Amino acid sequence: MARILDGKVIAAAVKQDLAMEIAQLREKEVQPKLVVVLVGDDAASASYVRSKERMARELGLEAEVIKLSADVSESELMRQIELQNADDSVDAVLVQLPLPEHIDTDWVLMGVDPTKDVDGFHPQNIGRYAIGSPLVWPCTTAGILEILERANAPVAGQTAVVVGRSRIVGWPTAQLLLAHNATVVQCHRQTRNLAEFTRQADILVVAAGQAGLIRADDVKAGAVVIDVGINRVDGHLVGDVDFDSVVQKAGAITPVPGGVGPLTVAMLMKNTVRLARIRRLTKEDER
Amino acid sequence: MARILDGKVIAAAVKQDLAMEIAQLREKEVQPKLVVVLVGDDAASASYVRSKERMARELGLEAEVIKLSADVSESELMRQIELQNADDSVDAVLVQLPLPEHIDTDWVLMGVDPTKDVDGFHPQNIGRYAIGSPLVWPCTTAGILEILERANAPVAGQTAVVVGRSRIVGWPTAQLLLAHNATVVQCHRQTRNLAEFTRQADILVVAAGQAGLIRADDVKAGAVVIDVGINRVDGHLVGDVDFDSVVQKAGAITPVPGGVGPLTVAMLMKNTVRLARIRRLTKEDER
Repeated sequence: MARILDGKVIAAAVKQDLAMEIAQLREKEVQPKLVVVLVGDDAASASYVRSKERMARELGLEAEVIKLSADVSESELMRQIELQNADDSVDAVLVQLPLPEHIDTDWVLMGVDPTKDVDGFHPQNIGRYAIGSPLVWPCTTAGILEILERANAPVAGQTAVVVGRSRIVGWPTAQLLLAHNATVVQCHRQTRNLAEFTRQADILVVAAGQAGLIRADDVKAGAVVIDVGINRVDGHLVGDVDFDSVVQKAGAITPVPGGVGPLTVAMLMKNTVRLARIRRLTKEDER
Repeated sequence: MARILDGKVIAAAVKQDLAMEIAQLREKEVQPKLVVVLVGDDAASASYVRSKERMARELGLEAEVIKLSADVSESELMRQIELQNADDSVDAVLVQLPLPEHIDTDWVLMGVDPTKDVDGFHPQNIGRYAIGSPLVWPCTTAGILEILERANAPVAGQTAVVVGRSRIVGWPTAQLLLAHNATVVQCHRQTRNLAEFTRQADILVVAAGQAGLIRADDVKAGAVVIDVGINRVDGHLVGDVDFDSVVQKAGAITPVPGGVGPLTVAMLMKNTVRLARIRRLTKEDER
């Protein structure tokens, strides 16, 4: 029976560490600040933003939400982002996605100052994946590393198989695992005989968005299985991994819900603190 | 016996196509121009730069070499690059590496206008690897794709194993193969049981810098083997692949020398033309 990697427990530990770190920063008169730009009144987006605000305040981070109407022009949105870029008290700028259709998302994300790019999506930041040292990794990817580290799962020299290559999860996660010296296999829709690869994985990350994609037969005994999928089946949330069968064979597994999900907002806070440290503390201060 | 993928023959075909394309561009009054910035008087660098100049002129490209002394200051080097960035007649700027030790290479490469970044090394360009659409791929990587395409080797759905993850060859090549829908395995020094992975490869790219690393036993029968290694052994140039044994088993193989090498300068020219098209032609012109 696999060890269950409980995201809520791990997120609580991350938050505890962060609260302490933020308190120490405030003693040095550094008050980390996150700004979230929210366009329109999509209920799901608004709810995500509220949970970010709530956690920020809980940890002693300053958080500000800038609400813009759904019909805001691209140039006005850009102007608001540039104000945040220019504001020295702001450490991190997050543009809540999705944006309305009349707005060019890529262009807007490129408008965020790369040193305040808390989501790690600016091309300048992605460009540093190649050398394994972006300022921050995207929140979900960072959460996966946090889970592996806190589960004491070795990464270097392990075979890591990532299923799915989305820009926000699969691809950056593969780059992060490579940066941590795993041998990395990137699988996707055009992969033939997916199971041939997944069966080789010491670490298996599944971010394909397809319920029941991975079953016990597809997993090596003892593997660490990270399920990033969120699918609604018969009114229930399930991952991409058939939990009930895989839990019998894997060495460790994240449940859905309650696995990777709870880490994401916590990692946003951690990224904010990291950007604040980089931007505001001199090497001297860090001693 | 494997088909030998002769880089000189392929490069000649690329050059023939390019000469025609450049002639057509000149009819539209577009004269593509490459500027090479050469710092110091390293003999090898100077020789590479001469071969770039020679090929450019042969194809009808304008090429200019800016020579700076080995003790040039970082700010003066930057100023020279900025002049080229600002010069509308310049399509492509290449800073010949290596730079002297007192100069921060990463910082200098970031100073090249991303739209003139003919080497594909600017973080903004690398950042577009994630979506599979950089303006250009680095020259060696682009040359590998050219070889695969001209050999009619399928890429999508194939298992591609890349050995080596350098920023200039291994890593971008893995990203390119992924962008072309291969299932990609990235191996490196910390990979255990390398042969277990290389034996799965339909396409095997070896860029490790270790003579004789890959032998017949390490290769699947019929595989396409691309050898990017250049090692000097007993006064001879050899690749990372034991050619004499692997040629008996592979389906196709690039020799060393005379495989990937001859493509690199040709791809620099092709990248220059591509940047000129993107920057100077409107959609209307491209019809």
